[in-house]
Amino acid sequence: MGTQGFRTLNEESLIEYIKATPALCSQLGDQVEGLTIKEVGDGNLNFVYIVVGPNGSFVIKQALPYIRCIGESWPMTKERAYFEALALKEHGRLCPNHVPEVYHFDRPMSLIAMRYLKPPHIILRKGLIAGVEYPLLADHMSDYMANTLFFTSLLFRSTLEHKRSVAEFCGNVELCRLTEQVVFSDPYRDAQYNRWTSPYLDNDAEEIRHDDTLKLEVAGLKSMFCERAQALIHGDLHTGSVMVTTDSTQVIDPEFAFYGPMGFDIGAYLGNLILAFFAQDGHADQVNDREKYKHWILTTLRETWNLFENKFISLWNKHQDGKGEAYLASIYNTTKLHLLVQKKYMKDLFHDALGFGSAKMIRRIVGVAHVEDFESITDASKRAQCERRALNLAKLLLKERRGFDSIDQVIASIQEFSSC
Amino acid sequence: MGTQGFRTLNEESLIEYIKATPALCSQLGDQVEGLTIKEVGDGNLNFVYIVVGPNGSFVIKQALPYIRCIGESWPMTKERAYFEALALKEHGRLCPNHVPEVYHFDRPMSLIAMRYLKPPHIILRKGLIAGVEYPLLADHMSDYMANTLFFTSLLFRSTLEHKRSVAEFCGNVELCRLTEQVVFSDPYRDAQYNRWTSPYLDNDAEEIRHDDTLKLEVAGLKSMFCERAQALIHGDLHTGSVMVTTDSTQVIDPEFAFYGPMGFDIGAYLGNLILAFFAQDGHADQVNDREKYKHWILTTLRETWNLFENKFISLWNKHQDGKGEAYLASIYNTTKLHLLVQKKYMKDLFHDALGFGSAKMIRRIVGVAHVEDFESITDASKRAQCERRALNLAKLLLKERRGFDSIDQVIASIQEFSSC
Repeated sequence: MGTQGFRTLNEESLIEYIKATPALCSQLGDQVEGLTIKEVGDGNLNFVYIVVGPNGSFVIKQALPYIRCIGESWPMTKERAYFEALALKEHGRLCPNHVPEVYHFDRPMSLIAMRYLKPPHIILRKGLIAGVEYPLLADHMSDYMANTLFFTSLLFRSTLEHKRSVAEFCGNVELCRLTEQVVFSDPYRDAQYNRWTSPYLDNDAEEIRHDDTLKLEVAGLKSMFCERAQALIHGDLHTGSVMVTTDSTQVIDPEFAFYGPMGFDIGAYLGNLILAFFAQDGHADQVNDREKYKHWILTTLRETWNLFENKFISLWNKHQDGKGEAYLASIYNTTKLHLLVQKKYMKDLFHDALGFGSAKMIRRIVGVAHVEDFESITDASKRAQCERRALNLAKLLLKERRGFDSIDQVIASIQEFSSC
Repeated sequence: MGTQGFRTLNEESLIEYIKATPALCSQLGDQVEGLTIKEVGDGNLNFVYIVVGPNGSFVIKQALPYIRCIGESWPMTKERAYFEALALKEHGRLCPNHVPEVYHFDRPMSLIAMRYLKPPHIILRKGLIAGVEYPLLADHMSDYMANTLFFTSLLFRSTLEHKRSVAEFCGNVELCRLTEQVVFSDPYRDAQYNRWTSPYLDNDAEEIRHDDTLKLEVAGLKSMFCERAQALIHGDLHTGSVMVTTDSTQVIDPEFAFYGPMGFDIGAYLGNLILAFFAQDGHADQVNDREKYKHWILTTLRETWNLFENKFISLWNKHQDGKGEAYLASIYNTTKLHLLVQKKYMKDLFHDALGFGSAKMIRRIVGVAHVEDFESITDASKRAQCERRALNLAKLLLKERRGFDSIDQVIASIQEFSSC
């Protein structure tokens, strides 16, 4: 797709666009006068407008044909909006409680209109930095991951549906390449945009660039990311892609969606929870030592994986006589064998998640894009100490992940690194 | 694609078709009178015509919209001809010495015109049954596999090229499904078309349907087959897909081609050589005990893998600074690390090949499609003995493949099973 039919909207032209688009008017209860329009995007990747009228509201997201990054222009196809809309619709169908509804998509304009997640919805990452507990988060996120991953895998789908959908999402290749570069490549070499808390982590970053075992493992993960079409994954499932209130959890921004390894989503999410955990010491003060909150994060981590595993297995059991072609009921035909294949599948998935999660942690500390969890710690020496603990845990997990049998063992390691 | 523009040709209408097709006339030196036309297809999958004129020749292959199998109709998209032509052209570009040239492709007609492989070219499988030694076979087949697999993988290609090509070949899904069924599913369950040398192998076939460890391993291989787009594989690289003379080796019939795991091709080929080995005792007679030939097959097996490994590594070394995105030179930047990643890659590939090769051996003994190597042994008891040895080796290899470090160890196991 070229730029034909594309024009960047501003608040004024957006109103004209809304008036000319029946799906949007109807979403506003056909009351298009007296709209409040607020641009809330960070301006780096997309324009995001909140549109509120007397009888309805929505969010408009328009992708720009580039990413402004570190002050420099980084071209990036605006076609990503197409794949984002596609993934929102597909994941929304599979998990409507945790994915905002898409009201309208305009491909030439790279424009998505979707449900406005009203206050008090905030980005989960900000909640984690503020130390807010979300009692339903583990339940909701395990729901989201189990449903979106199971139902788009060959455990549920026929090869015919699977390959058709895989082919379509192959078109999102530019976003895949971006991940390959910033997650699997740049942190392990000298790269222009790499940064870290210097000078404290200079040696740590250097060590990563000379760690042969780590590089060997990362190569295996990168190959899996590039080659293995296991399920329709979100592709960027960090805590900045989740909006929350105490009783609502909504996953947004799947512009990196494609058919990839399930462990990439699960690992991204768990890895970012672990980063949030290691950042807590940097947020502690005399009023709140954050120990209770650290405990809550670890409990959430444990529950997220354990609930995910249970829900995924339940879906598998429920649909084991369906059209999914991975494990035909006529072959895997005894309870013993059925349990055996499920155990192996979940163990492999757990190890994939630990591997990808670790890679995502590492890249957030020595790569181009950092996380606010650490960035908001103003004392650089304290920040570096938090980051180093996370980095060391990630390196261990990435290399030794096949030796971990349960999330409890991971949590024990986190606690060990947290106190050293 | 529907049936629009499709009609089944016969010898008469083929002549009219040739006359109306400039590319074919030109291949005949524009001498389209006095043609000899001979139908040589087995009539089950395709019509195959050899067309010879005074000044040129070619083969015409037309796919039919079904496979006749065991006397019953089995519908199968004729679009497979499109993917066959695509693969012939791509593999032919990468390895012109061992892939027949495509002169013309007509998509609505599902018709490919390609180089006629003149006598004394015969199907390799028939040569192996006859006990003919091919001194260049290992060299040629290792060439074919190294070139077609390396150059269509991410070791050579950019993600951009890779995903585009992967998406295209997702269209060949019906043929992939056929493989999934006949290789990875049917042998492990009661299935209508399964057969074996009964009653001799009744227990052996039964055991396979109740072997939990085997089924667990086969599930892993099936997932890899369905999900892992590692390279453009032939998809059906048995010894019946290779035509040979003493100094020519030509790989034909890639209608199952798609982006799948490299080990599937390598395993299919090596596995079929091993079947040829185990069939030799059934072909032995008082004139020729076949011991020398069995030795030659094992030597060929050893050389095929070892030459493949060397050539593949050489291509990798030669192109390590190219556009391939799997192992960037800026990361894998020391000789030691480069050797380390290559060693791991080749070891994994070896194990994949052993796994897939074993699955291919098993399915040829207890599944729907058998091999002439065994079928031509008329004494059923003798045939069953040969088949059982192959089956037992295949079961061992499939389950224990990760314990094998070299092709020599595999050969030692083959010899062990051969004498029991």
